[in-house]
Amino acid sequence: MSPHPRHPSSSANDAARTRYLRLERSGGVITVGPEQADRPALTAEIIAELRDVVAELVREGRTRVLVLGGSGHGFGSGADPERIVAATLALGAGELLALTRTTGQVVRALREAPFPVVAGVRGTAAGAAAALALAADFRVADPGARFVFPFTRAGLAGADAGAAYLLPRLVGLGRASRLLLLGDPVDAAEAERIGLVGPLAPEDRAAEAADQLAHRLAAGPAPAHRETKALLTAELDLPLGAAVDLDAAAQALLLAAPDHAPFPAAPTTRPEPEWEGH
Amino acid sequence: MSPHPRHPSSSANDAARTRYLRLERSGGVITVGPEQADRPALTAEIIAELRDVVAELVREGRTRVLVLGGSGHGFGSGADPERIVAATLALGAGELLALTRTTGQVVRALREAPFPVVAGVRGTAAGAAAALALAADFRVADPGARFVFPFTRAGLAGADAGAAYLLPRLVGLGRASRLLLLGDPVDAAEAERIGLVGPLAPEDRAAEAADQLAHRLAAGPAPAHRETKALLTAELDLPLGAAVDLDAAAQALLLAAPDHAPFPAAPTTRPEPEWEGH
Amino acid sequence: MSPHPRHPSSSANDAARTRYLRLERSGGVITVGPEQADRPALTAEIIAELRDVVAELVREGRTRVLVLGGSGHGFGSGADPERIVAATLALGAGELLALTRTTGQVVRALREAPFPVVAGVRGTAAGAAAALALAADFRVADPGARFVFPFTRAGLAGADAGAAYLLPRLVGLGRASRLLLLGDPVDAAEAERIGLVGPLAPEDRAAEAADQLAHRLAAGPAPAHRETKALLTAELDLPLGAAVDLDAAAQALLLAAPDHAPFPAAPTTRPEPEWEGH
Repeated sequence: MSPHPRHPSSSANDAARTRYLRLERSGGVITVGPEQADRPALTAEIIAELRDVVAELVREGRTRVLVLGGSGHGFGSGADPERIVAATLALGAGELLALTRTTGQVVRALREAPFPVVAGVRGTAAGAAAALALAADFRVADPGARFVFPFTRAGLAGADAGAAYLLPRLVGLGRASRLLLLGDPVDAAEAERIGLVGPLAPEDRAAEAADQLAHRLAAGPAPAHRETKALLTAELDLPLGAAVDLDAAAQALLLAAPDHAPFPAAPTTRPEPEWEGH
Repeated sequence: MSPHPRHPSSSANDAARTRYLRLERSGGVITVGPEQADRPALTAEIIAELRDVVAELVREGRTRVLVLGGSGHGFGSGADPERIVAATLALGAGELLALTRTTGQVVRALREAPFPVVAGVRGTAAGAAAALALAADFRVADPGARFVFPFTRAGLAGADAGAAYLLPRLVGLGRASRLLLLGDPVDAAEAERIGLVGPLAPEDRAAEAADQLAHRLAAGPAPAHRETKALLTAELDLPLGAAVDLDAAAQALLLAAPDHAPFPAAPTTRPEPEWEGH
Repeated sequence: MSPHPRHPSSSANDAARTRYLRLERSGGVITVGPEQADRPALTAEIIAELRDVVAELVREGRTRVLVLGGSGHGFGSGADPERIVAATLALGAGELLALTRTTGQVVRALREAPFPVVAGVRGTAAGAAAALALAADFRVADPGARFVFPFTRAGLAGADAGAAYLLPRLVGLGRASRLLLLGDPVDAAEAERIGLVGPLAPEDRAAEAADQLAHRLAAGPAPAHRETKALLTAELDLPLGAAVDLDAAAQALLLAAPDHAPFPAAPTTRPEPEWEGH
């Protein structure tokens, strides 16, 4: 990224600071989507820019929730095949590796970000776009959405950018093997059944539903969300003993922190408290 | 715990040996529940006593199955919010950590116990009670049961006491993220669908169903149950190569042990053999 | 195994090279099943021979897909109880361990094989046969199929041959605990619901469906399948950071390799490209 990192702000000029991505800020919610909603294919340049945007949001420290998607079809159609092939024909080993590492860097950055990430999915989330969606904490899809990992159909590894790590932990090893080895699409109803997405949004309302969920999260306690996500991410790779120790340390920290509030007596009906700290 | 550990026995005096918990013994089945069935909220003192009871049952070596629940609503309503807040306001960092470690110690003890653990759930299992239920080998619920992890609603980490380790391994990372970040309740039918509980008990019969399952297990081969559970627990944290080696060693031990019996020709219809050894 | 490893070939003489197993080759698809279809119980000798066959297929380098099953009931009925008991009564500790290690060696070999493995399951896959099926990448079952892990009913560990490692990663820890501790059978519909098998084959057509799937895979890009499977296997045991690095290296290798082809514009309707390399 440039030595002068762009600073996303709440103005419409956000888009001007990035070349390929459009950023919108609403309260603590940042929504990022492709600049050209009518041509949403991910390219290596777009993915590299997304990596830099996430890094900057983390550094800047004002984001409470990140939404991947935006208007139109979001990151739906994955990497542009012609561009990838054209790019790779001209590349040596080191350059190839730099290219293939980019999406994985975004996946890792999204998993390690100190705020929840919501992916809104309408239409088909394919390839790198599907891999990015796996790294989100929430996948919000409408009934017409599909996920497809078509890598093996192009002679590539279905395990692109953490998919072979994340997908078995989301839907189980058998279903993940099938999806990554065969490259068949999975539709929204099946994705919901196997735990790949949450409850489906009404038809064509994935973007609105993602936005609603993001604002609900943004109205909640940022430190609690940050620690919960960090522990979910870390404990996939930790043994039980270390996990319970880490939980205890994080909980003690939050109990000592200022925006702790008492448990609601009836957690589902009580009005939400307003959260101040972060 | 006290230097003179209490020894649970088959007499009704068991309850007298513990201050907050009521223990009942029936054959090799120990059922533990709150002393006051009408006021079942878990407190730090109750959780610490449960930790000591599990340690004593392991030491004593007579338990074949442990049931968490008992009459009434079992451990359903989780930690008492007023007591936790009152307690934490007065505490320093070391004391806070001692408090937050307690439930995790019980979770770890339950996972490492050399006998199966059955959690009977009726009504709402919330907070620490829900975390304890995750550590059981079986969760038996009736159709009115609910699970809720309301920690983030109180500004705390949803990853309390191993929940961020166990819940993704039970229901997948996506569903676990949703449950722990949002703190929304999950009802019994959904809990069954996603693999959080086994087949549902008839209405209001979770305690009886848990008891039946426990007695079925207690009539089976204790060494086989002990090794199976130990391997399930260990292999979550082991690579495949070490896992198959460990399996082979455990199986060789059981083949050399006295209460090995031939495979039933028709495993589901043949009367169960009577198991002697442990 | 013998110092002169048998070389499976496309002739009907394959069967003559093995004592207990019948091998058939069709293109790159190798189907292996018991020699005596009417008496399909697995014995220690059959399992040891299967281990040697898989090792030889890997060495030989011509297999694109391995199908476990064959005509009749495949490996359905698991280990022969009388033979195991008879064998173990006469054995010392070292010999017992050699025996119990055998199935685990096959499981590990199947997971580490550089080609996809398809298990066709009709009737009941029990015990060692069920454990072997867990190691496959695809389990193809018909509506009458059942899986059962009856080990604890015989006083043995339900965690035989990697089952306590693989089953929780396929269906979740709760369901795996129930299946391995209780030894109850799970029928095909439930197996499909929980992610243990893929879409069910028509009645009595598991063998044909397994064969069709194998030929579809064999017509695809072998290097992409090999890397995808290797990454799925490895990343169960890796942290996220190492997983995305490994993905990037594998993808860069495949992009540099000759049988890379462009992403299909419409992955589900376009005719499959013909794959040459390996």
